[in-house]
Amino acid sequence: MTHPPSLVSVFAPATVANVGSAFDVLGFAIDNPGDTVIARRTSTPGVRITSIVGDNGKLPLSVDENTAGVSVKALLSAYRNIHPTEASEMGIELELTKGLPIGSGLGSSSASTVAAVVAANELLSTPFSRRDLLPFAMEGERIACGAAHADNVAPSLLGGFVLIRSYDPLDVIPLPSPEDAWVAVVTPALELKTSDARRVLKRSVALESAISQWGNVAALVAGIFQNNIELMGRSLEDRIIEPERAQLIPGYAAAKAGALQSGAVGCSISGSGPSVFALCRSHEDGKRIAAVISDAFAQAGVASTQTVSRINTTGAKVISKE
Amino acid sequence: MTHPPSLVSVFAPATVANVGSAFDVLGFAIDNPGDTVIARRTSTPGVRITSIVGDNGKLPLSVDENTAGVSVKALLSAYRNIHPTEASEMGIELELTKGLPIGSGLGSSSASTVAAVVAANELLSTPFSRRDLLPFAMEGERIACGAAHADNVAPSLLGGFVLIRSYDPLDVIPLPSPEDAWVAVVTPALELKTSDARRVLKRSVALESAISQWGNVAALVAGIFQNNIELMGRSLEDRIIEPERAQLIPGYAAAKAGALQSGAVGCSISGSGPSVFALCRSHEDGKRIAAVISDAFAQAGVASTQTVSRINTTGAKVISKE
Repeated sequence: MTHPPSLVSVFAPATVANVGSAFDVLGFAIDNPGDTVIARRTSTPGVRITSIVGDNGKLPLSVDENTAGVSVKALLSAYRNIHPTEASEMGIELELTKGLPIGSGLGSSSASTVAAVVAANELLSTPFSRRDLLPFAMEGERIACGAAHADNVAPSLLGGFVLIRSYDPLDVIPLPSPEDAWVAVVTPALELKTSDARRVLKRSVALESAISQWGNVAALVAGIFQNNIELMGRSLEDRIIEPERAQLIPGYAAAKAGALQSGAVGCSISGSGPSVFALCRSHEDGKRIAAVISDAFAQAGVASTQTVSRINTTGAKVISKE
Repeated sequence: MTHPPSLVSVFAPATVANVGSAFDVLGFAIDNPGDTVIARRTSTPGVRITSIVGDNGKLPLSVDENTAGVSVKALLSAYRNIHPTEASEMGIELELTKGLPIGSGLGSSSASTVAAVVAANELLSTPFSRRDLLPFAMEGERIACGAAHADNVAPSLLGGFVLIRSYDPLDVIPLPSPEDAWVAVVTPALELKTSDARRVLKRSVALESAISQWGNVAALVAGIFQNNIELMGRSLEDRIIEPERAQLIPGYAAAKAGALQSGAVGCSISGSGPSVFALCRSHEDGKRIAAVISDAFAQAGVASTQTVSRINTTGAKVISKE
């Protein structure tokens, strides 16, 4: 039997949730950016966060207030049912390095949480499968957004597109990763709280709009299975959520119009915003379209950062183990 | 060049539209029952319906009031743009044989319409592809239900599951046909008008229910692509339409509960009802479950007919050509 590692470093990728028409049910991972977590085994029982880099001091070191801390505690607590003595005697120290801006709509808290649970699981010699780690990561989401959402943590953990059919019972369905798709993501330098982005939504929708929305969601899933990015692109059409949230993002309308005119097959808000993603036919297209979106934000007086990536197929990745 | 036929006989299958959660966007064909149309070339210009068998005198022989007649007229009118002289000189006579009960929720008018346009297209030596025939068949639906719906005609024409993403522009997406699925269909001896079934629906829905619905629709499409009938079954869950329409069908609640207890993976209303369909794991299961559903209707004092079928993969079929 090999010795369990005492230090593990894990990278977890950014994710695009909501995905146009598929509000609250679909998310996918992109290759970069992402967050990195180092987990270290110590002899002082319990979970501690020793440092957070790249958050401009915004995130709490307190384990019970930090999504990564809460999730690793949940994992350790479940591990106690398997190895009670080891679990109660060991300690886990976490170092978080944020590559993702907070409140950007790219699943920033999810990436840290996922990297932390994957790293902790490796420290324990992987008692849990990737899929089994999901409920622990969802515990982190509960303190980040008030509800145990899975549409960012699941794709960051598993890679690709992931569908959340239901929460009660939890029904998570990994979908294929369309090889031909490229994604341009532009993040304006605005912070949008998920709770604020939820507040603008109407509590009820016209039946006719809802039917149109689930027609688009169905076609988006068909496009994903068929690796048909034209179909995916036109199925992003969102009559319900996007019109409400667009008003929270200065320059969004121009950014989207510019992206579509420049060859994007589809464009929408990433997560609860303010990041914008565009589905593109090639890396070249992605770079050009990201620049067009960025220019539109600049016109609205908002600086932005951009990235172009394929759909990530692997989810969180172990970088090193000692 | 072969001589064009002077008589063509075509069978078009019954269809299940609405498919649980996927109200108004998805339909599939079953192998039987269905309607048969004989189209005959004549030298008297225009379209005529010479006989209708099996409708108990309910359907109009008048071409402009009959869905099949309207559709064949639309086809002939489009053909005029290709071969003006032939189209204006030739006549088409139609004989309809109804295998499907009217107002049963199994796409009865659609099956006649599809059989008629496919037969007429054969008479003309197939100037139009199957996919091209869809708009003509939809013209028939317009007089049958007041709107040019495609969720019955498209699967009856093309076979398998067909998704209608949008009507403007028309975006029709054929999906795979899950090989492992069997369908039990039970038709109670009640006539339900589509217009009445539409009238019970609320004009708006809670956002939360709509999200749950499109999560189910997405998972249903994933299940179809993965040939995963367990996933398909649980994704039929419909929080919006079924609760409203169930009250129009005496015995429905007991029929559905019985079907699920007897091993159906899912059960819902076919089209706008009153037919009920249950997704089943095998032919054996299908027969048992159809009997259970039928018994539940009998308990409610309603006679019924039943059929068990695979998903039809071919759509309308040319039976003979002379």
